[in-house]
Amino acid sequence: MGFLKKLNSKYLKLKLKHSPQQNLFYGFLTYIVVGFILLSLPIFQKTSAPFLDHLFTATSAVSTTGLVTISIFDSYNFGGQFIIMLLFQLGGIGYLTFTTFMLLSTTKRITRWHKAILNSEFTLPISIKIKDFLKSVVIFTTIMEVIGAILFFIAFKMDGMDNYPAIWNAIFHSVSAFCTAGFSLFNSGFIDYLDNGFINFIISFLAIGGSLGFIVVTDFVLWFKNKTHKLSFTTKIILIGLSILLSIAFLFFYFYEPSITNLDGSTRTYAAFFQAMSAMTTVGFNTLDFGSFTTPILIATVFLMYVGASPSGTAGGLKITTLTAVFSIIKSRLRGSQQITFFGRVIPLERLYIATSSFIFYTSLIFLGIFVLTFSEDFNLEKIIFEVASALGTVGISMGITGDLSAVGKITIILLMFIGRLGVLTFGLAIWSRSISESEHMVIEGDIAV
Amino acid sequence: MGFLKKLNSKYLKLKLKHSPQQNLFYGFLTYIVVGFILLSLPIFQKTSAPFLDHLFTATSAVSTTGLVTISIFDSYNFGGQFIIMLLFQLGGIGYLTFTTFMLLSTTKRITRWHKAILNSEFTLPISIKIKDFLKSVVIFTTIMEVIGAILFFIAFKMDGMDNYPAIWNAIFHSVSAFCTAGFSLFNSGFIDYLDNGFINFIISFLAIGGSLGFIVVTDFVLWFKNKTHKLSFTTKIILIGLSILLSIAFLFFYFYEPSITNLDGSTRTYAAFFQAMSAMTTVGFNTLDFGSFTTPILIATVFLMYVGASPSGTAGGLKITTLTAVFSIIKSRLRGSQQITFFGRVIPLERLYIATSSFIFYTSLIFLGIFVLTFSEDFNLEKIIFEVASALGTVGISMGITGDLSAVGKITIILLMFIGRLGVLTFGLAIWSRSISESEHMVIEGDIAV
Ligand SMILES: [K+]
Ligand SMILES: [K+]
Repeated sequence: MGFLKKLNSKYLKLKLKHSPQQNLFYGFLTYIVVGFILLSLPIFQKTSAPFLDHLFTATSAVSTTGLVTISIFDSYNFGGQFIIMLLFQLGGIGYLTFTTFMLLSTTKRITRWHKAILNSEFTLPISIKIKDFLKSVVIFTTIMEVIGAILFFIAFKMDGMDNYPAIWNAIFHSVSAFCTAGFSLFNSGFIDYLDNGFINFIISFLAIGGSLGFIVVTDFVLWFKNKTHKLSFTTKIILIGLSILLSIAFLFFYFYEPSITNLDGSTRTYAAFFQAMSAMTTVGFNTLDFGSFTTPILIATVFLMYVGASPSGTAGGLKITTLTAVFSIIKSRLRGSQQITFFGRVIPLERLYIATSSFIFYTSLIFLGIFVLTFSEDFNLEKIIFEVASALGTVGISMGITGDLSAVGKITIILLMFIGRLGVLTFGLAIWSRSISESEHMVIEGDIAV
Repeated sequence: MGFLKKLNSKYLKLKLKHSPQQNLFYGFLTYIVVGFILLSLPIFQKTSAPFLDHLFTATSAVSTTGLVTISIFDSYNFGGQFIIMLLFQLGGIGYLTFTTFMLLSTTKRITRWHKAILNSEFTLPISIKIKDFLKSVVIFTTIMEVIGAILFFIAFKMDGMDNYPAIWNAIFHSVSAFCTAGFSLFNSGFIDYLDNGFINFIISFLAIGGSLGFIVVTDFVLWFKNKTHKLSFTTKIILIGLSILLSIAFLFFYFYEPSITNLDGSTRTYAAFFQAMSAMTTVGFNTLDFGSFTTPILIATVFLMYVGASPSGTAGGLKITTLTAVFSIIKSRLRGSQQITFFGRVIPLERLYIATSSFIFYTSLIFLGIFVLTFSEDFNLEKIIFEVASALGTVGISMGITGDLSAVGKITIILLMFIGRLGVLTFGLAIWSRSISESEHMVIEGDIAV
C-alpha cells in the first residue's frame, strides 16, 4: 500500500504539469496505444491484418464507437476479443472515473486535481457530490452489466446456442451494450435477432441505462434513498429531451422507412424502436441494414447521431443538454429577450457559452470530416455524411463503407472517433489551452451540464 | 408634395405599430406579392406557366437569388423581363434603402423609425452616419450599373450581338450582376462566355462591388475624401476575409476540379475564379455546369455559399463578419480565455450573441430544408444540399434540379429564398418578437456588423 501511494504521488506530480483536458487526452491516447500494440501481437489474432486496422479497432473500442474495418470475430481470438472488451469498458465508464475510483479506494480522498478532471469530463452540476457520483458509477455499471449478461445468456440459450459461446457472447455483448460500444461478435450485427423481442429489450435496456448518464442515475438513487432530494434540472431536461426525440424518431422509422413498413406487427415495432434507440443512445447496434434505408430516414438518423444522449453517460454526440441550451438561445433571441431561459429558468451565461462553442465546433468538425472524405473516398455523399456523423458521435452504425475506406479515410475516422469520445471542447482545450490556471476556470456553477 | 407628405405620415403611423423587423418582412412580402401578380398577367408573358412558377420567379427576383423553374427569356416578354429587373433592383439595394431615400428626398430628414429599420437591415457600425450611407448607396449603385451596362454593351457588340438586344442585355445583366441577382436572359447562363475574359471581368467587377457592401464603400469614399478617416474594423475584416476565402476557393477550383483542370491556360484561370467568385459573392452566374462538378468541389462551393460575403451588401449567406465572430469564439474558448478577441480587439458580447444565434439558426434552417427536400424530392442528396444552400444563401446556382422540383419542393425553396434575403434573425424576430420596445434594444454599438 505504501508503494502504491508513492507511485500515485509520483504519477500525480507528473500529471499536475498538464491541464485536466490534457490529462484526459493523454489518458485516452495511452489506452489506444496500449490496445493497438496488444491487438497487433499475433498471439491475439486469428488472421493477420494491416497495422492501421488494429489501430482502428483499438480507437473504435476505447472511444466506444463500434465501427470496424475488419471482422472482430474472424480477426481476433478469445484473448484479442477480451482485450477489445476491456478497452471499451475502460473507454465507456471513462478513463477518469476508473482511475479516480482506484485512487479513492487507496487514499480515501479525491484530490483537487482529480475533481477538476472529473468535472471537465462529466460536467457535473455542483449540487451532486463527486464521491456519491463515483460510487454510483461503479455500483450501477456492475449491476447493469451482470443483469445484462444473465439476460443475454438466457436469450442466447433459448436461441439454441451452446454453453460456452453463450457465456462469452452474453458477457461481451452486455458490456458492449451498456458502454454503448456497439461492438459485436456477430459479423452481421444483430440482424439475425430482428424479430427477437427479448434481445431487442435487453440491448435497449442496457443502452438506455448506460446512455442516460450517471448524473441521472445518481440523481435517481439519491431521490430513491431520500424522497426530499429533488431531481436536478439537468435530469429533467435529459429525460424529457430523450423521450421526445426518441418518440419522434420512432414514428419516423415506423411510418416512413419502407424496409420497416414492410415488416409484420411486432417486428415492425421492434425494428423502428431499435434503430432509433441505437442512433440516439449511440450504442450503434443494428437489426437492419442502414445501407438500404431511404434518404430522409438516413438524414433523420444523422440528426439523432448528431444530438446523442445525455452528458456524463456513455453516449457520444453533441448531447441533449447542449441542444437544449442552443435551442433556448434561439428562442430567447427571437423573442427579443435579453435573458436566456428554459422552462422558466435562467441559464447561466457561461453554460450558454460552452454550449454554443460545442455546437459550432462540433458542426465544423462534421463538415470538415465530410470534406476530407469526399476528397479521399469514392463513395456517394450520403454514405460519407453517415460515416462521419457516426464516428464523431461515437455511434458506430455504417452504410457499409468502413472496411473499404482508404488509408486517409481510416485515419480521418480514427481522429473523429477519438475527438468524439474526448468531447470536442475537451479535445480543443487539450490541444490549444494556454495554461492550467486559466482553463480551470472553465468549470462553473450552473443549471445544465453541457 | 403636400399630398405625398400626408400619405407618408399615414403610412408611417401604420408602420409604427410593427417592429422594424416586421416592417422589413411585410415590405419584402409586398414586393413579392405585387411582382407575382404582375408576372401572372398574360400581357407580360410569352407563354403561360403555372402560378407557382410565377411566385417562384417573383420571390427569386426580390430575394436576388436567381434560381428559376422556368426560362426567363422564353416565358416572359420584354415587359415581364423589365418587371423582374425592377424586382431584383429593389430587392438588391434593399427595400429600406430605397424607401428611406424616397422619404429623405421629400422630407429632408430620416425618422427615428427608419433609422431603426436601416440599422437592423444593414447592421451598421455606429461610426458611419446614416445620411452619408444612403447617399453612397444611390450614387454607388447608379455609377456601377451605368459603367457595367456600358462595358456589357461593348462586350456584347464585340461578340456580334445586334444593337437592341445588346442594349437590353447590357442593362439587364449589369443590374443583375451588381445586385448579385444572378438572373440571366441566356438559358444556359454565361456558359457561352466561358473564355471571354472581358465578360468574366465585367461580372466579377460588378458582383464584388455589390457584394462588398455599402459599409465598405462608404468607408472607402470617406477615406478617399479625407485621408484622416480610418477604415473601420468591419471593412478590414470583410476585405481580409474575402481575399483569403476567395484565394483558397480559387486554388481548389483551379487544381482539383477536373472540368476546370481540363481547360487551357487563361480559360482555366477564368473558370476557376469565376465559379469561386460567383458562389462567394452570391451573384450565382456560372460559366460551367455545376451539375458536372465532383463532390469535393461541390462541398467547397456549398461552404462558400454558406459563408457569403459582407453584411449590408447585396450578398446573402451567413456573412464573413459572422463567421469571424464565430471563429473568434472558438479560438478564445479553446485558449481558455474569457474575452473574445479578434486581431487583438475585444468583440462586444452582444455582437457575439447575434453572431452565434445567426450561425445556429442558419445552420438549423439548412438542415431542415435538406430534410424536407429529401422527403419531397427524388434527387440525390448532393443536389438537394446544393439547392438548399444556394436558396438560403440567395446564390442561385443549381445542379439543375430547380425546374423539376415538386410543388412542396418549390414552396420550400421559395421560403428559404425569402428568409435568406431577410436574414435569418430578422425573419425570426419579425415572426416571434414580443414587442417593439424590446426588440429595439437589439441594435447596439460594436465593432463588427454581423
Ligand atoms: K457506439
Ligand atoms: K444570386
